Amino acid sequence: MAVTEARAALPGVHRREGLPPRVRIWEVGPRDGLQNEASILPAAVKAELVTRLVAAGLTTVETTSFVSPARVPQLADAEEVIALLGPLRAAHPAQGAPLRLPALVPNLAGLERARSCGVRDVCIFASATETFAMKNLSRSRAEALEMFAPVVAEAQADGMGVRAYVSMCFGDPWEGVVPEVDVVSVCERLLEMGADEVSLGDTIGVATVGQVVDLLDALARAGIPAGRLAVHFHDTYGQALANTLTALECGITTVDSAAGGIGGCPFAKSATGNLATEDLCWALDGAGVETGVDLGRLVETSMWMAARLGRPSPSRVVQALGGREVGTKEEGR
Amino acid sequence: MAVTEARAALPGVHRREGLPPRVRIWEVGPRDGLQNEASILPAAVKAELVTRLVAAGLTTVETTSFVSPARVPQLADAEEVIALLGPLRAAHPAQGAPLRLPALVPNLAGLERARSCGVRDVCIFASATETFAMKNLSRSRAEALEMFAPVVAEAQADGMGVRAYVSMCFGDPWEGVVPEVDVVSVCERLLEMGADEVSLGDTIGVATVGQVVDLLDALARAGIPAGRLAVHFHDTYGQALANTLTALECGITTVDSAAGGIGGCPFAKSATGNLATEDLCWALDGAGVETGVDLGRLVETSMWMAARLGRPSPSRVVQALGGREVGTKEEGR
Repeated sequence: MAVTEARAALPGVHRREGLPPRVRIWEVGPRDGLQNEASILPAAVKAELVTRLVAAGLTTVETTSFVSPARVPQLADAEEVIALLGPLRAAHPAQGAPLRLPALVPNLAGLERARSCGVRDVCIFASATETFAMKNLSRSRAEALEMFAPVVAEAQADGMGVRAYVSMCFGDPWEGVVPEVDVVSVCERLLEMGADEVSLGDTIGVATVGQVVDLLDALARAGIPAGRLAVHFHDTYGQALANTLTALECGITTVDSAAGGIGGCPFAKSATGNLATEDLCWALDGAGVETGVDLGRLVETSMWMAARLGRPSPSRVVQALGGREVGTKEEGR
Repeated sequence: MAVTEARAALPGVHRREGLPPRVRIWEVGPRDGLQNEASILPAAVKAELVTRLVAAGLTTVETTSFVSPARVPQLADAEEVIALLGPLRAAHPAQGAPLRLPALVPNLAGLERARSCGVRDVCIFASATETFAMKNLSRSRAEALEMFAPVVAEAQADGMGVRAYVSMCFGDPWEGVVPEVDVVSVCERLLEMGADEVSLGDTIGVATVGQVVDLLDALARAGIPAGRLAVHFHDTYGQALANTLTALECGITTVDSAAGGIGGCPFAKSATGNLATEDLCWALDGAGVETGVDLGRLVETSMWMAARLGRPSPSRVVQALGGREVGTKEEGR
């Protein structure tokens, strides 16, 4: 395929001062990506996606969500996907590197479902704004946090890893600017109740680099260590990679991204969702930042997934390296 | 339209330390963008594009290219476009702000054509690598530079502004890594022969942020002031905005971009060419960097142009703000 040839054009490694030596990529494609796609894929395809992502070197792959099937029909088969991943889980410890296959749980019922099929890492989903808490969780921010407290406590008592997402950390479509103090207080509460880490979400993709610095400064001043934070940028306005690199310069070392940039197609089929893992890896490979990811295998995986979804990947890297081989009506010349 | 509403979601202005207070955008869409599009547009549409871009606040808009019509049929009507821009030129001085409408000239014959229809700013096009010089200019790098010397001398004698593009400053598809010393020596020669500024092109879009810093450091060490340089990134691998912001942190204050990200569609119709001016403006507006551009009017212009080209804009901002109103087969949900 064309990947090796095109990668040869990558002009060497140029360390960028201020970036960390190693970044942990938290791959969210199978969950955050697929829940926002129009297509509903078979469980076997989802499990194959996770398996391919792990084979490409990703060691943290968020697999699915134990939400109401009526609400997110794309992920209605969470139990089946987890069951299909049994062999992957079983095989991996032998290789030494820790493999984490977290799943989202909205409440205690979701935690029960996840636990009973063997999930060992869970994620909860809070909001920095009142309006989004009401719209997404049907309760106030404070009520949502209280709902999460026993979920975190039970998961921790069971030895599970717990990550908390905070959405709308930068802008909110109903409230506009999100005050830093609101993000700080939600993060503080989530860490107090026992979450291992908090992922700061730019759910609508409006953030710019100065705001990233300002928010991370505010969190640092509140005594929250960068090691307990991750960043989660959507590329709606083309800012995701620049914002991510800025966050890395501020001490963040965990980054969320989705293979192929899948998910989040508000208007057009090729509009973008999450930061594409490939575009992130191109940047980090070039800057000499270790990720453990094999970009060629990752691009192959996203080309395969694009064919399953019946649309080209919005990732620039996938378009550049794989475009010729993804057969869709978009091709032409 | 939706632009105003969606812009309200832009979460305020957060100054980013290290960025300049003001950036000059050198809009290349009508030339670098359209020369790489499949569609051949009527001269009146091209002139309207330039006129709309100026109305959106861009004060430097590269209009066309006086190359061989056989070689670049997309821009075969350079004289006609320039003639149609006469009223724009005539009207503008009254407003006070300087308006520049440069055109590309490949050689003395091109300079003559440009001059005889009243062009006052010209651009020449050199290469940092031997292979691309041979392929694009049919002569060695040194021979190409000698060909340009009289073009620059004549243009300057006539009081014209002269910009020199240097392509393949980071990676070359045939040669791979491009040594910084080669870029430095070509830039030195072009400035010595009298070019006002040099635009550093990442023609194949492979550069990453550390390499941008390294090349700009090398140019600074050679005594070339940042004020005589511009950066010109293509978004082939999704790195254009991050690279541009990095260059601004290194003291660059002139940035090339194309409204709507038009141009450069190697594989897929929605693949990307230049950095999209809208995505750049979103970043700079958010960081409090002045550009003079009205983003809403610019997005309207790119939506209009997308309809003329019969395909959606690859700009993330245009997709997000204008996607609903650009009627193409890509829309759906």
